[in-house]
Amino acid sequence: MQNPVITLTTDFGYKDPFVGIIKGVILKINPAAKVFDITHGISPQNIFEASLVLEISYNAFPHDTIHVAIVDPGVGSSRRPILAVTENYFFIGPDNGIFSRIFALAERLTVFHITAEHYFLKQDGSTFQGKDIFAPIAGSLSKGVDISHFGDPITDFKKLSIPSPQLTGKNVIDGEVVYIDRFGNTMTNIPKEKISEMTGSNSENKIKVLIKGKEIPFKTYYAEVKDTGLYALINSFGYLELFVRNGNASRSFGIKTGDKVGVILP
Amino acid sequence: MQNPVITLTTDFGYKDPFVGIIKGVILKINPAAKVFDITHGISPQNIFEASLVLEISYNAFPHDTIHVAIVDPGVGSSRRPILAVTENYFFIGPDNGIFSRIFALAERLTVFHITAEHYFLKQDGSTFQGKDIFAPIAGSLSKGVDISHFGDPITDFKKLSIPSPQLTGKNVIDGEVVYIDRFGNTMTNIPKEKISEMTGSNSENKIKVLIKGKEIPFKTYYAEVKDTGLYALINSFGYLELFVRNGNASRSFGIKTGDKVGVILP
Amino acid sequence: MQNPVITLTTDFGYKDPFVGIIKGVILKINPAAKVFDITHGISPQNIFEASLVLEISYNAFPHDTIHVAIVDPGVGSSRRPILAVTENYFFIGPDNGIFSRIFALAERLTVFHITAEHYFLKQDGSTFQGKDIFAPIAGSLSKGVDISHFGDPITDFKKLSIPSPQLTGKNVIDGEVVYIDRFGNTMTNIPKEKISEMTGSNSENKIKVLIKGKEIPFKTYYAEVKDTGLYALINSFGYLELFVRNGNASRSFGIKTGDKVGVILP
Repeated sequence: MQNPVITLTTDFGYKDPFVGIIKGVILKINPAAKVFDITHGISPQNIFEASLVLEISYNAFPHDTIHVAIVDPGVGSSRRPILAVTENYFFIGPDNGIFSRIFALAERLTVFHITAEHYFLKQDGSTFQGKDIFAPIAGSLSKGVDISHFGDPITDFKKLSIPSPQLTGKNVIDGEVVYIDRFGNTMTNIPKEKISEMTGSNSENKIKVLIKGKEIPFKTYYAEVKDTGLYALINSFGYLELFVRNGNASRSFGIKTGDKVGVILP
Repeated sequence: MQNPVITLTTDFGYKDPFVGIIKGVILKINPAAKVFDITHGISPQNIFEASLVLEISYNAFPHDTIHVAIVDPGVGSSRRPILAVTENYFFIGPDNGIFSRIFALAERLTVFHITAEHYFLKQDGSTFQGKDIFAPIAGSLSKGVDISHFGDPITDFKKLSIPSPQLTGKNVIDGEVVYIDRFGNTMTNIPKEKISEMTGSNSENKIKVLIKGKEIPFKTYYAEVKDTGLYALINSFGYLELFVRNGNASRSFGIKTGDKVGVILP
Repeated sequence: MQNPVITLTTDFGYKDPFVGIIKGVILKINPAAKVFDITHGISPQNIFEASLVLEISYNAFPHDTIHVAIVDPGVGSSRRPILAVTENYFFIGPDNGIFSRIFALAERLTVFHITAEHYFLKQDGSTFQGKDIFAPIAGSLSKGVDISHFGDPITDFKKLSIPSPQLTGKNVIDGEVVYIDRFGNTMTNIPKEKISEMTGSNSENKIKVLIKGKEIPFKTYYAEVKDTGLYALINSFGYLELFVRNGNASRSFGIKTGDKVGVILP
């Protein structure tokens, strides 16, 4: 690979040296690898949150990027390490559904069970497979080792059950809050396309948005709002989002992931 | 550009994938770009804090570094994206005053209103201009696109009203606390030069420092102090700072940004 | 140096621009240097914690890596800046014991007192030697400046008194908790080798682990456990660790660093 790029998405946080250690291991195998952090702030062991973060992040990176994701409550058990190849990217991580949203979007997908232990680091324990398995496999792949050397294809890889927005009655889309960012903006699982498809492409702004029995006005951008009320818009990732301008929607209105959100079509 | 360096200063925090996404976008446009984090821990939407952090950081980097700063309460509104060129650096961000302190120090300064939308990413929304505008402009500039291609010069760019220390009476400099770091050290807006200018260059240590009606002893370095009292010194950025040795001055003495600090000249 | 790699381990946190500034200073001196973060989340001024983090991290990186560590309560005092060379790595930081655990493991070790002030940055103050001394020395070393230029060898460098596990009676190893990670896993200072040496290499799993008067079952990996009780294993760094599966051992069982842990041999 020319210019090999590897990204890391984990729940390791920023207190411990675990992310640094992983970068060291990659670098030892391939000094030319460039390693980028997507985030290490995934809530501990929250595979669902990681799957969503990966979905909105992976394709910002150049083609052939190797995305490593490690949120892994089953570390050390019989859950398999996997390497997946889509039309444009590589993915390395535990077989626990963490790539579900990306796999669902892929046009071409092959998933390999990583079994070639001679590429692993010698292990003192079974608690840090990021260091012992995922980092060395990413390093080796970035150096040009052929994928087929890491293991055999599988088709029974794990898929998360991902909540998708549902059309109820004739004119309501039922979705839910799936992610809350640092600013308290609450992103739902209702994509712009789902709304446009129902309203026609120039009438999205005639919808009404419902949460906790209240109707929320729909806007085009944050700064359009002058007060501290709750509003909705389509965010930069193409999903319906509830926000408070220069405030924290989640905190001010007690909105949590899993809260139901409805879109009433015009 | 040889060895193009781009820095990022934002209030995006470390929980979300936003910083990673921005790096991906830059890398897609210019694989040779090296991206460095100044900090993503700016208090949400605190433009003043960001302007100060930029002032003490920007010239640690090599000449021709492109400094991208995104603390942007007005994102998506009519506030303009700008690109500024000084004698040694480039700056990209919102036209909200975030570069005020740097612009005030510049010997040569040209500010451009970024309007060349064909360099932008296709937008799904107007909520994340870091990804859609600032990252691709930084990537394109780092690849050598001529500055004039991004837009026209403007002179009415926004300037923050920055508190500057004032001489009151004959022998008092009135300033204030402008930044508190992780260790609780409280940096004021009173520069060493302002003090030296009044005392002569070898008598800075004869000053008295006042906060909350109390007189604080002046020292040369942290370790000179043996107790847990409040002391003052000139910090490594050249500003008067109040500190507690191996303690937290802000927490122990209830010092906040905006608190008034006085220097009594000898 | 080909491919010069520099790592940073500090207690600077993620709020302030200090780490970014250090990277800028290094880059200005050596644009080819690659700088990696081990962590900046060391508890403020906790030299002992940093020494442990360095021990489990340093050798994940390629040979000739320059490890810079800055946890420095004595900054600005007469405590010396040092540069150490072991068989495979370089270390730069304050002479306060921060490298104690690494030095104890080194087969070859030479420690230099850094005195060559012409390599330092011009200083405005004495509060940020990371910027003014350690970063420029690391940058210069990475560019190939000969070690002997930075100062003279010393032998009276500071060593921390590090608690080591003790054999008491015939069959008990007494150790203590030395590090608690983000997940609440509590690592002790009892290495696998110490246990194997006493039990023979295939009987480690017959030991009993004691903490706070309770006997804790010993396991091989996290996922072997199905309940939320407290268990012990050997972690990936080769040390005995107490954990709660998918939970927080430190929080749930009130375990802190310094708590005594015993291993009863079979």
